[in-house]
Amino acid sequence: MAVFDVNPIVQSLNQIRQDWREAQRRSREPGGREFPSRDAVAGVIESLKGALFPMRLGPTDLRHESEDFYVGHTLDTALHALLAQVRLELKYDSRLRPRPDAEIEAQAEQAVHAFAAALPGIRMLLDSDVLAAYQGDPAARSVDEVLLCYPGVLAMIHHRLAHQLYRLGLPLLARIAAELAHAQTGIDIHPGAQIGAGFFIDHGTGVVIGETAVIGERVRLYQAVTLGAKRFPVDAQGNLQKGLPRHPVVEDDVVIYAGATILGRVTLGRGAQIGGNVWLTHDVPPGGHVTQADSRHDALPGG
Amino acid sequence: MAVFDVNPIVQSLNQIRQDWREAQRRSREPGGREFPSRDAVAGVIESLKGALFPMRLGPTDLRHESEDFYVGHTLDTALHALLAQVRLELKYDSRLRPRPDAEIEAQAEQAVHAFAAALPGIRMLLDSDVLAAYQGDPAARSVDEVLLCYPGVLAMIHHRLAHQLYRLGLPLLARIAAELAHAQTGIDIHPGAQIGAGFFIDHGTGVVIGETAVIGERVRLYQAVTLGAKRFPVDAQGNLQKGLPRHPVVEDDVVIYAGATILGRVTLGRGAQIGGNVWLTHDVPPGGHVTQADSRHDALPGG
Amino acid sequence: MAVFDVNPIVQSLNQIRQDWREAQRRSREPGGREFPSRDAVAGVIESLKGALFPMRLGPTDLRHESEDFYVGHTLDTALHALLAQVRLELKYDSRLRPRPDAEIEAQAEQAVHAFAAALPGIRMLLDSDVLAAYQGDPAARSVDEVLLCYPGVLAMIHHRLAHQLYRLGLPLLARIAAELAHAQTGIDIHPGAQIGAGFFIDHGTGVVIGETAVIGERVRLYQAVTLGAKRFPVDAQGNLQKGLPRHPVVEDDVVIYAGATILGRVTLGRGAQIGGNVWLTHDVPPGGHVTQADSRHDALPGG
Amino acid sequence: MAVFDVNPIVQSLNQIRQDWREAQRRSREPGGREFPSRDAVAGVIESLKGALFPMRLGPTDLRHESEDFYVGHTLDTALHALLAQVRLELKYDSRLRPRPDAEIEAQAEQAVHAFAAALPGIRMLLDSDVLAAYQGDPAARSVDEVLLCYPGVLAMIHHRLAHQLYRLGLPLLARIAAELAHAQTGIDIHPGAQIGAGFFIDHGTGVVIGETAVIGERVRLYQAVTLGAKRFPVDAQGNLQKGLPRHPVVEDDVVIYAGATILGRVTLGRGAQIGGNVWLTHDVPPGGHVTQADSRHDALPGG
Amino acid sequence: MAVFDVNPIVQSLNQIRQDWREAQRRSREPGGREFPSRDAVAGVIESLKGALFPMRLGPTDLRHESEDFYVGHTLDTALHALLAQVRLELKYDSRLRPRPDAEIEAQAEQAVHAFAAALPGIRMLLDSDVLAAYQGDPAARSVDEVLLCYPGVLAMIHHRLAHQLYRLGLPLLARIAAELAHAQTGIDIHPGAQIGAGFFIDHGTGVVIGETAVIGERVRLYQAVTLGAKRFPVDAQGNLQKGLPRHPVVEDDVVIYAGATILGRVTLGRGAQIGGNVWLTHDVPPGGHVTQADSRHDALPGG
Amino acid sequence: MAVFDVNPIVQSLNQIRQDWREAQRRSREPGGREFPSRDAVAGVIESLKGALFPMRLGPTDLRHESEDFYVGHTLDTALHALLAQVRLELKYDSRLRPRPDAEIEAQAEQAVHAFAAALPGIRMLLDSDVLAAYQGDPAARSVDEVLLCYPGVLAMIHHRLAHQLYRLGLPLLARIAAELAHAQTGIDIHPGAQIGAGFFIDHGTGVVIGETAVIGERVRLYQAVTLGAKRFPVDAQGNLQKGLPRHPVVEDDVVIYAGATILGRVTLGRGAQIGGNVWLTHDVPPGGHVTQADSRHDALPGG
Repeated sequence: MAVFDVNPIVQSLNQIRQDWREAQRRSREPGGREFPSRDAVAGVIESLKGALFPMRLGPTDLRHESEDFYVGHTLDTALHALLAQVRLELKYDSRLRPRPDAEIEAQAEQAVHAFAAALPGIRMLLDSDVLAAYQGDPAARSVDEVLLCYPGVLAMIHHRLAHQLYRLGLPLLARIAAELAHAQTGIDIHPGAQIGAGFFIDHGTGVVIGETAVIGERVRLYQAVTLGAKRFPVDAQGNLQKGLPRHPVVEDDVVIYAGATILGRVTLGRGAQIGGNVWLTHDVPPGGHVTQADSRHDALPGG
Repeated sequence: MAVFDVNPIVQSLNQIRQDWREAQRRSREPGGREFPSRDAVAGVIESLKGALFPMRLGPTDLRHESEDFYVGHTLDTALHALLAQVRLELKYDSRLRPRPDAEIEAQAEQAVHAFAAALPGIRMLLDSDVLAAYQGDPAARSVDEVLLCYPGVLAMIHHRLAHQLYRLGLPLLARIAAELAHAQTGIDIHPGAQIGAGFFIDHGTGVVIGETAVIGERVRLYQAVTLGAKRFPVDAQGNLQKGLPRHPVVEDDVVIYAGATILGRVTLGRGAQIGGNVWLTHDVPPGGHVTQADSRHDALPGG
Repeated sequence: MAVFDVNPIVQSLNQIRQDWREAQRRSREPGGREFPSRDAVAGVIESLKGALFPMRLGPTDLRHESEDFYVGHTLDTALHALLAQVRLELKYDSRLRPRPDAEIEAQAEQAVHAFAAALPGIRMLLDSDVLAAYQGDPAARSVDEVLLCYPGVLAMIHHRLAHQLYRLGLPLLARIAAELAHAQTGIDIHPGAQIGAGFFIDHGTGVVIGETAVIGERVRLYQAVTLGAKRFPVDAQGNLQKGLPRHPVVEDDVVIYAGATILGRVTLGRGAQIGGNVWLTHDVPPGGHVTQADSRHDALPGG
Repeated sequence: MAVFDVNPIVQSLNQIRQDWREAQRRSREPGGREFPSRDAVAGVIESLKGALFPMRLGPTDLRHESEDFYVGHTLDTALHALLAQVRLELKYDSRLRPRPDAEIEAQAEQAVHAFAAALPGIRMLLDSDVLAAYQGDPAARSVDEVLLCYPGVLAMIHHRLAHQLYRLGLPLLARIAAELAHAQTGIDIHPGAQIGAGFFIDHGTGVVIGETAVIGERVRLYQAVTLGAKRFPVDAQGNLQKGLPRHPVVEDDVVIYAGATILGRVTLGRGAQIGGNVWLTHDVPPGGHVTQADSRHDALPGG
Repeated sequence: MAVFDVNPIVQSLNQIRQDWREAQRRSREPGGREFPSRDAVAGVIESLKGALFPMRLGPTDLRHESEDFYVGHTLDTALHALLAQVRLELKYDSRLRPRPDAEIEAQAEQAVHAFAAALPGIRMLLDSDVLAAYQGDPAARSVDEVLLCYPGVLAMIHHRLAHQLYRLGLPLLARIAAELAHAQTGIDIHPGAQIGAGFFIDHGTGVVIGETAVIGERVRLYQAVTLGAKRFPVDAQGNLQKGLPRHPVVEDDVVIYAGATILGRVTLGRGAQIGGNVWLTHDVPPGGHVTQADSRHDALPGG
Repeated sequence: MAVFDVNPIVQSLNQIRQDWREAQRRSREPGGREFPSRDAVAGVIESLKGALFPMRLGPTDLRHESEDFYVGHTLDTALHALLAQVRLELKYDSRLRPRPDAEIEAQAEQAVHAFAAALPGIRMLLDSDVLAAYQGDPAARSVDEVLLCYPGVLAMIHHRLAHQLYRLGLPLLARIAAELAHAQTGIDIHPGAQIGAGFFIDHGTGVVIGETAVIGERVRLYQAVTLGAKRFPVDAQGNLQKGLPRHPVVEDDVVIYAGATILGRVTLGRGAQIGGNVWLTHDVPPGGHVTQADSRHDALPGG
């Protein structure tokens, strides 16, 4: 029977971890992990999906007449589970800027309260997304099929919850929620992106939507569309400037076909249509149609 | 300890659900969910994968000499589990067009019978797909590696089962089966697509194949290829016309390289080769080679 | 209650399996499966992730002061589980080239020893990848967020382990490890690809990196980048020649933007920048910038 | 590798099953199992335990302020799960006495309605049992400890639910519920036994209480007490007569010490005390004390 | 956050293990566990229960028409899983009496072959036990209820399988199988006990049946009956003599009521009845009735 | 489809809970459960069993050469999990006697430290129990069989851990640990009982050992032995007096055969032997033999 002496490897790995922690200026205090858990966030999102759409995404043995019992119980436990994760993010965040535990606790509770209060509005937005998908895809047979089968709708459930977390100052939890959808759907929406009602992504694999993108109502996207940044803004010293608007503004009723790439803080005017595979780094007026043919005659900047 | 009063949120969500159901003209009758279950369909597909390829996708402790026992038992339970889901789809479908339960039951049983009878043919087609992958990829070391590792093969197992469900008038179950593969592989094949023997998709992420696509034998595709619709056909009143052929016809022995986009009811003639990233909305004659260079000189329509 | 007679289907499937085995020249000896198990490899990789990054990817109740206990125990069981899979691959491999069991066993143990010894180096490389992601993405808030959330980092953990397996003559296990990441991230890196320190893939969906690609240090890639083969090299008789260098060489500090396709054994010189959607089949000198505009003026070969 | 030819064993077992079914006059019609499921009943009982004692036997993350949500949701799903099992028992029961499905369905629903209506009363009885245990055992530190730790209390939760099922004409479900407690506690109470409020069994292993036993209020039992039948009543033809009273009547405030065996339709009068290991087949007057000494005509102390 | 330095405890425990191993003359060679696994044996027994009684103890979705498929597949995998455990016991057994691996392997396969061949006979015996329980208990409503609910029947399923293992020279596996039933039912039957057809234990908790007990046909026992050894036979040097007959012989049609204790190699003649709580250390003639009264020389009624 | 209106039942149950809480003088403050969890304690005990006997009760894939890694990791996580339960018990305990959180925390940590320090001693005691069982049972084939199969040994593992918890002022956790063994083995040992080295219980079902029992070294017990209280001591006012010695003292080398009942604070002198079914309420001198005959004043053989 083979024998592996793992001791030297354990020692090497220990040394590498110490080096890393020193390089990262981490103290090596005793204690456990203090970072939100992907599994815990996944559990919260699953519960919220059930609470938002009890008869369709809740337990299969749920019945109309006891929906509210289920919704109430599920919300209560999900919100408390979320609270625990919120505490972890805020505490992690306070490593560099220490502040009293009570202040963290108060902020955590406030954030979860606000998040809870936003849920009805999120459900209404998601209803509009489901309708948009149903109306926009000739293959869709019912709103229920759309809710249960379409990856674009799944991505939007995650996004609308993640965006709320992002707005409440919880970018890490928001990011985890978004990546959970990314892994399942291939759709990568940064939780910071602002997206209006009635949004629909068809097929979806390869879609990327950046942090400062602003999307109006009734916008439709196909697979592999990128709403990205042209370049990262830097200050006079050449440092990256965070938070500056650097992704497109997409106005109401715009349609963007598969594979199109829109880069930078450009505006696609109301009702514009962007053809497949188009590479676009300038504004499009309301009602404008851009095809690959058109885009060829641009002097196209580097990525 | 933080306390969240979930009652008002429960009430709001209840109101929103009522509004939705009224808007969707749903009665709010008591009762449970009557919609096929993603988990149940996933279970059926997993069982069928084991029944079709017992020594490779069945349980790890299976042995050659008892394969038939396993196959028979697994088929029997999988088909009955499928029957339950078929009933749910047909019943759901009869919401708008009510008909007697006995008729639904008869149709459900007939559909499962036909599905079962199609399984040997499906296995033979999948064997041809496995061989095509093995022969088409210089990196493939064995047919077993191909069956176990290649996402394109996984997608085709799902597709060939889903397509059978689609042909039997079960588009919802078919869709669920297809989306299960989409989530795992990033390959999005509509269950309506007709695909001949010896089909191979390499890498696969981002491939989209539309509902009315017709693909011949020994066709090979690479990642991010789209076989899509140019535009949705509308009737005189501007309503979407469903079911009209609107996706490409791809004849035998065609190869389509990564990122190519073929839109509309065009025909790629036998043995044609379509280069990477090509954007194509017209026919290609048998044996024709199209590269990005060629496609640049087209006046390219919008998406 | 519906009754399905599965006997004829069982018989048909049995016959088809026999035909397949004959066509593949497989004996139908009694016995069990002798092929590595995807689930077992997944378990090994999960354990190794925990052993490499105990406080971040290990169990949530782990504590600093007992890290080494966890690492040692986890390594020991993971390496023995890996050994079992290595034996399966080597045995499978010996079907065609039979050799003594003792030789297989010796090779298996040697391979696992070498794999274990490589782990500290892999951890150091992965630390450099995490830092590269943190420094390269203005949205990243901490190295911990990067390690836990970024699909590109997950793909690299799998790749650096898979590449080690590949180098040790275990291409099947390597492939399974790579496909596990592909399924989760949409990033498809062949385990044979050689990748230097500080590598970062942002977003990632649709990235494909081929078997003989060679990538230097501090290289950055965006989603949907392909480092592929232009054509498969054939010998005088027209047979595919395996193992010949056919994918790009990417030197240090190169950046390749989203959707770019680089095909064939070309070299992108140190510090080159390749714009989004560029289609490239020739060398780029050090420091060169290629944009879509430039690439339009090439006569572009077929895929 | 060893090979076992299971075919002859499969054939033998098949033949034995056929013989059995013929001997039992069972038709061998195709179809599935139609017998209540132990696992399903176990699930219902677990849910009901949570609904009856939400903060102590419900989920660990439950909170006071959302108890009712949990209770309502849990009751609803448990009652519907129970309904399915009730249907199975009634259908099984109708093998010999066929009757219309609608009648069975109506009876099933009626039974579950009545069962549900009895739950508040059952909770009150169980509260009295918990208090009795707390007051009766000097080692008990709190009512919560009693509810969570005492096997006698667990047995009574099962019994009070099982007895309700028994009274509603569901002896099979009742039996399954009782055996689940028997397996966990070693306490074997027939669901037919009538037991008043404030009942307490200490230690409990080996206790057997028969079907027609009638137990008053505030009775206390110790381990290995049997309330059994002396002999089975037979009619003139020597056939067993079912349902006749054949087990003891135990009046209020009786205490029966460990190992005592009381057989037959005798009455232990109010406040009687039966010593350990006593073997008793005759009545005891109110307030009477029986010790082993008495039962043996010599002097031994009471329990 | 509390910190526990587990190092000194780990060291102490290590030292104690070393002391133990030295005291037990165990070498501390590297390597894994080589002892049968309780969980593995439990899995084998569960599978065999399903294979013996497919429609009642097999999977709930099993259907008559595919019983044989299920039985064949389940037998095959259970027998191979058993083979692995048999190897472990024989290997463990050979610590003290080393012998060639090939011999162990041959013996293991032979044992499993013989075990498999005995299964049909075991099923027939168990059918007789089920009938005996049904006929012996006035409360029993059907043979199905008996098979599914009666702990005495569960204990006999385990015993008849365990006894076969015992006879095949696998006392450890036999013991594990017996203890699994003991834990669930409180019935402790040594796997060596020989028990004829039509055996029934009612209630069962506390029953103990010793290794050399010999029980005829149609014997009935109640709870807490002991068939034990009076004293352990010793040889001239005072050493325990193993394997000598030291437990009762119980002839056909004997009934033994609750709590009776029969000790030593006595014979209870055909049709004898032993009353409750009787303490008996001498033979009883055929047809004899012994009551507590007899055994104490005073008048007490029979059980 | 049946509809049950659970609202009135929910309301009734709510009212009953309120009544109960008022009767028990519980405030109904918002918040979660604050009581130790049976599942959590079970997890801790399982882990400790593995840490104490790594190669026999630890994970099946453990290997000698990495035992210490496993032991260290398992101890660390088990002790921290225990700490969380200790906090819950101490907090629950402080309901009536409020004290500062910091004091509770300090006591909790101190208790877990002391518990950890006691583990090596517990392992040594358990080794003596295993040896005693091996030497005392002629059927035992190896010390390993004893450790893995004997319910009496399992009960002692639980007891020796539970007794330590009891001594550290954690009677609730101790009780839960004891009841877990009771449910599996039918052996009910109060965690307060003091038991010397080399203790062995054979068969075990029905054994009851009371809180203040004191048992010497090398004592052996058989099934259904009770070491109980004769009566509960009361003070002048008739209130139960807790904690007074009320159970037997059993000196070294005593053997007590099956079914014997020893009640009250009597002393069984060194080397005494108590026969089966004996009922005993007085002292026995060292070396004394008591048989049922003695206790009944007539001649019956010893156990």
